[in-house]
Amino acid sequence: MSRVVMKFGGTSVADLDRIRNAAQRVKKEVDAGNEVAVVVSAMAGVTNQLVDYVQKAGSLYDLREYDSVVASGEQVTSGLLAIVLQEMGINARSWLGWQARIITNGAHGSARIERIEVDEIIRRFGEGQVAVFAGFQGVGPDGRISTLGRGGSDTSAVAIAAALKADRCDIYTDVDGIYTTDPRIVAKARKMDKITYEEMLELASQGAKVLQTRSVEMAMKHGVRVQVLSSFEDKPGTLVVDEDEIVEQAIVSGIAYNRDEAKVTLRKVTDTPGVAASIFGPLTEAAINVDMIVQNISADKKTTDMTFTVSKAELKRAIQVLENNAGLKYESLDSDPSVAKISVIGVGMRSHAGVAQKMFSALAEKGINIEVISTSEIKISVLVAEEYTELAVRSLHTAYGLDAED
Amino acid sequence: MSRVVMKFGGTSVADLDRIRNAAQRVKKEVDAGNEVAVVVSAMAGVTNQLVDYVQKAGSLYDLREYDSVVASGEQVTSGLLAIVLQEMGINARSWLGWQARIITNGAHGSARIERIEVDEIIRRFGEGQVAVFAGFQGVGPDGRISTLGRGGSDTSAVAIAAALKADRCDIYTDVDGIYTTDPRIVAKARKMDKITYEEMLELASQGAKVLQTRSVEMAMKHGVRVQVLSSFEDKPGTLVVDEDEIVEQAIVSGIAYNRDEAKVTLRKVTDTPGVAASIFGPLTEAAINVDMIVQNISADKKTTDMTFTVSKAELKRAIQVLENNAGLKYESLDSDPSVAKISVIGVGMRSHAGVAQKMFSALAEKGINIEVISTSEIKISVLVAEEYTELAVRSLHTAYGLDAED
Repeated sequence: MSRVVMKFGGTSVADLDRIRNAAQRVKKEVDAGNEVAVVVSAMAGVTNQLVDYVQKAGSLYDLREYDSVVASGEQVTSGLLAIVLQEMGINARSWLGWQARIITNGAHGSARIERIEVDEIIRRFGEGQVAVFAGFQGVGPDGRISTLGRGGSDTSAVAIAAALKADRCDIYTDVDGIYTTDPRIVAKARKMDKITYEEMLELASQGAKVLQTRSVEMAMKHGVRVQVLSSFEDKPGTLVVDEDEIVEQAIVSGIAYNRDEAKVTLRKVTDTPGVAASIFGPLTEAAINVDMIVQNISADKKTTDMTFTVSKAELKRAIQVLENNAGLKYESLDSDPSVAKISVIGVGMRSHAGVAQKMFSALAEKGINIEVISTSEIKISVLVAEEYTELAVRSLHTAYGLDAED
Repeated sequence: MSRVVMKFGGTSVADLDRIRNAAQRVKKEVDAGNEVAVVVSAMAGVTNQLVDYVQKAGSLYDLREYDSVVASGEQVTSGLLAIVLQEMGINARSWLGWQARIITNGAHGSARIERIEVDEIIRRFGEGQVAVFAGFQGVGPDGRISTLGRGGSDTSAVAIAAALKADRCDIYTDVDGIYTTDPRIVAKARKMDKITYEEMLELASQGAKVLQTRSVEMAMKHGVRVQVLSSFEDKPGTLVVDEDEIVEQAIVSGIAYNRDEAKVTLRKVTDTPGVAASIFGPLTEAAINVDMIVQNISADKKTTDMTFTVSKAELKRAIQVLENNAGLKYESLDSDPSVAKISVIGVGMRSHAGVAQKMFSALAEKGINIEVISTSEIKISVLVAEEYTELAVRSLHTAYGLDAED
């Protein structure tokens, strides 16, 4: 007997037929003798509709009211799935965040789960009852509904799995697993059987939007074995697990890209201690998120060139903040919104030299100029002209031997 | 300063423009210095959609899950109205049934409110906060959402008004008040300024579907002054009040009709003690609601003719139950689904003779045959062939002097 958490995303519960399909998968686990908790998202499109209502109701809307309105979508699907399961002869009941005592820190709109009181749920497992949780929601110290941010049902599922000490947390979605890169760009992208938490984190934050980043962090912290798999096909997906579980570790596991980058370069900034702080402090205050940062010492050694990236939408605002910064002395400010970030990711690169060199030469071979380089322990990212995105991703996928065999 | 409860029905909050319109009315009360609690229904059409989902999810659906799914509609509108009010500079917050401690008896799908803990709401009135309640819902002893039955937001509003000892409970809807009869049938129908609880109860249960019957009972019990008025026009509606408040009482206040009646006649039933119970017991067990019942002694004094009405949809089932009743002896069973019930209603008829006689002669004048008569203290109902419905209602409206002047 295992204890399993199954999470179904919006496309997997988009209508009653799909809810029935999800229920069939739950039934399979129940028939196998497992204890099952299910976490559901809102029907596809519903959350967007509710967010739209809220935004039109008031420009500076109250996040507490936002949470109450938007959480209703998951309330609907949890009740419907419970009814469909009962119709199949399965003992099931729905649990809303406040009923299941999913206690958050009360930060409305992006709350963090602090604890879940699972004793009653476990008692009912003993009676053969399936728990169907409304995802994305909890209750804060103010006694009001608080939601966990977009994609928060993933986090609900992992948090519930951690609290229940579940053997597995299966995330059912509309893709059949995690790929070495985006299959829409690289036809030879391969589905991975396993990936480490760390790699998944880099992939998720690099734009492979299968799992909410926070859910991966939480899974890593609590050692929850997460599986990403398809609601619509009957085959294993990708396991997100601890590094130790992966016997033969590829040096590079995947290639990610992010087109939502814009580059800003400040030339010949007077190089004094604290210059970086004087640039990035005002940007942070303006809530502009800076991604890559590279600083080069210039030839004269009295000035420095500073390059960084922001999201395309925030470029204009970022330039304004810099230009209004009277204390900042520089020769020129250049910007370029037509760039993309390409990253190679793999825990194996920690112990292998030459990974970066392979990346640079593969790109050079195709005549792709690298504008900025930034590295972390398990990732190398480069900034290239946006028009080279697909070519760069495909070339690297081949260079690191990730292409599927025919 | 008054304490006011304002309830907005589904058509009054059907979209964001209408929610803004409702908010304007709330603002007027706030600006007048009043303490305001608002109760909202779901957006028009939403509850039907949710009920449809539930019915398609399972034929024998769990009413606890039904309640959780269906109550989400009011959750959405309460949050949206709170946001719109805040946008207008009004301090407002939404309250769900479980947050406001609207405690029900837990009878899912048709729960009764047992008490409401209003201390916190009243404290916040002191801070100038408007309370926006999700109507139709409470929380039962099982800790789950329980709904009050269709139209239940009226009952929420009256219950909240009673608990708050409110000066008024204004029910905003898509009609501008209670009419002497259905204006779609009688062009000269008049809007009443006042009507008694008792008359409203008879009108509501006779098919004038403006207020949920239970809300009127509750208003009568707690002496809540209810006003029915339009969300879309700026004029007074109809006050539903105690009889004492109505100085000059019309003998007949209104004419109601109900087309959803079917007649069953059992001829020459052997007349023994308990024969009525042997007919209606099995019908009750089959959950068939019997409306009018008339029994006549036949000429031979050993048998009796029994006539009663059921709703058109239940006629077939009623006949089956009667035919399967081996202990019941009768000569023939006739049925007629093409009948309608016409009622004249007025507390004034208690103290006036000749009210029934006027009804009978007005109908006779038009050649309308009366098939069954039944009377209560403030109401006379007759069953006529359905095709005479409009003619009968119009004739009676004129006969009792209810027609509006040109």
